[in-house]
Amino acid sequence: MKAIQVHEETRRLYIDEVDGPSLTDGELLVRVRATALNRADLLQKRGLYPPPPGATDILGLEMAGVVEEGAGEWKKGDLVMALLPGGGYAERVRIPANMAMSVPEGFTFAEAAAIPEVFLTAYLNLIRLGALTSGQTVLIHAGASGVGTAAIQLAKARGATVIVTAGSQAKREACLGLGADLALDYHEGPFLPAVREYTQGRGVNVVMDFAGASYWEQNVSALALDGKLILVGLLGGSKAKDIDLGVLLSRRLQVIGSSLRTLSAERKAELTAAFASDVLPLFRDGRMKPVIDSEWDWSRAQEAHEHMEQNRNIGKIILNIS
Amino acid sequence: MKAIQVHEETRRLYIDEVDGPSLTDGELLVRVRATALNRADLLQKRGLYPPPPGATDILGLEMAGVVEEGAGEWKKGDLVMALLPGGGYAERVRIPANMAMSVPEGFTFAEAAAIPEVFLTAYLNLIRLGALTSGQTVLIHAGASGVGTAAIQLAKARGATVIVTAGSQAKREACLGLGADLALDYHEGPFLPAVREYTQGRGVNVVMDFAGASYWEQNVSALALDGKLILVGLLGGSKAKDIDLGVLLSRRLQVIGSSLRTLSAERKAELTAAFASDVLPLFRDGRMKPVIDSEWDWSRAQEAHEHMEQNRNIGKIILNIS
Repeated sequence: MKAIQVHEETRRLYIDEVDGPSLTDGELLVRVRATALNRADLLQKRGLYPPPPGATDILGLEMAGVVEEGAGEWKKGDLVMALLPGGGYAERVRIPANMAMSVPEGFTFAEAAAIPEVFLTAYLNLIRLGALTSGQTVLIHAGASGVGTAAIQLAKARGATVIVTAGSQAKREACLGLGADLALDYHEGPFLPAVREYTQGRGVNVVMDFAGASYWEQNVSALALDGKLILVGLLGGSKAKDIDLGVLLSRRLQVIGSSLRTLSAERKAELTAAFASDVLPLFRDGRMKPVIDSEWDWSRAQEAHEHMEQNRNIGKIILNIS
Repeated sequence: MKAIQVHEETRRLYIDEVDGPSLTDGELLVRVRATALNRADLLQKRGLYPPPPGATDILGLEMAGVVEEGAGEWKKGDLVMALLPGGGYAERVRIPANMAMSVPEGFTFAEAAAIPEVFLTAYLNLIRLGALTSGQTVLIHAGASGVGTAAIQLAKARGATVIVTAGSQAKREACLGLGADLALDYHEGPFLPAVREYTQGRGVNVVMDFAGASYWEQNVSALALDGKLILVGLLGGSKAKDIDLGVLLSRRLQVIGSSLRTLSAERKAELTAAFASDVLPLFRDGRMKPVIDSEWDWSRAQEAHEHMEQNRNIGKIILNIS
């Protein structure tokens, strides 16, 4: 089959002929029709984010396509989408049957491929770990990122008030268009005063953070009593200095390190099943939608990566596997 | 009524005549028969731990006694025990009806008064926040403290493996006698190597900590994947230096600040109800027991406090209200 490969020296992407996947029990063979980019792909192609043991070294953490060999409840011809440990940038991929979800009716493969990674990440962090409920307030950093756009919609669907940070006027507007109640531009100064003012001093119940050390102080200060800081990324550094544990205790705060990719296959399957019954219906009735920045034929994967590297996307970048 | 007062200058305890409590709707009036000491009492009498707004300034965070005026499901003559926002060091106390629990059959008032604070604290931290389950391993610091002795029994009743730290041979033996699987003396060096060896490198699922900054590094390193560090006290300082957030993320760790006393009345009542149905039956059938260090007539409260201040107790110090 054809798959995207990474040039050993230039690290540029190109399509080449490779061996197809060999199935094991309980796995589906899927003809991939669309896959989507993730920041982890950019790291992985530079050797900075090795795939988990046993996973293919082909890039691609999610896809949508057509079942070619069924297993479990799935049969040939079914339209499925799924999170992957890797292998989405290819004509065919194998997946455990319990990781597949039905493509929502009427959705294109591109739209379906834009769902798994970001919406499962948002679901894991806001609902499972953050226990976000109706009437609560959440602060979502990088609101216009793929995960951010999913998190805004999920939080609004839960009945929460949503504050986001984003890095440009266009990104702020995109967040507001998805339902965010307040969108702050982090270039305009610290977000903490605006969060305090907007929440009338109460603070937020959940923070979903990708920055780590650089936002630590503000994030902790932005939390309400019993608030939860979900650490999903550390783009602003990992070493936090002089942390005051007294604040965690006196305000009963929780700091939760999170990583979807390192979850076991069992945990991912369980999360997928919960998401499919809990959230997928909201796509079917139009209350939630994947946010697509752009679609590219997979022969242009290198250009698509450069687009993400320039940090210009709002929502997901899709590769259509022709 | 009579109640223990704190001398304004010497900070010594003495019994004096004070106004009795005035009930509001849904409250019981209880004739206190026994109360128990807590470390918070030592702080509060020095003005370092003010009671929450609206609470009496009489010491005493738990008690057992006889209902004198009923409310809700309780009637005059019922034997009850309860967590209190304060007021246990007195002949009478008022409590919301939904905070009362039945004294287990055959228990003395002293035994019953030894239950609420430490067992509810252990329940909140190990079960609610720590989500400790059968087959998991927990590290309990200060294993011979009141909360420690409750936590050991609760964790064993849940089917967990229990590692404790304690500060003397006698305390280690007391912990082992309560069912702890491994008891480490923290005077003999860092606990981390022994925890790693005992868990064959896997680490523990939950740490219940009273030290804070001084144990931070070892506690985090002792945690298994998805492990939870429950911060219940900060006796070893509150400022942790150079925390590596990357470890929290890569190993999906959770740091949870906890405080039973600052929970709202609703949350305390809810916790009490869950504890009463979930754990109290284990007292009735002898699988769990309050650990009493010593009993004192309340006229000797000052001596009892000095006993705790010398850090010599194993389990609870009880005052019988004669």
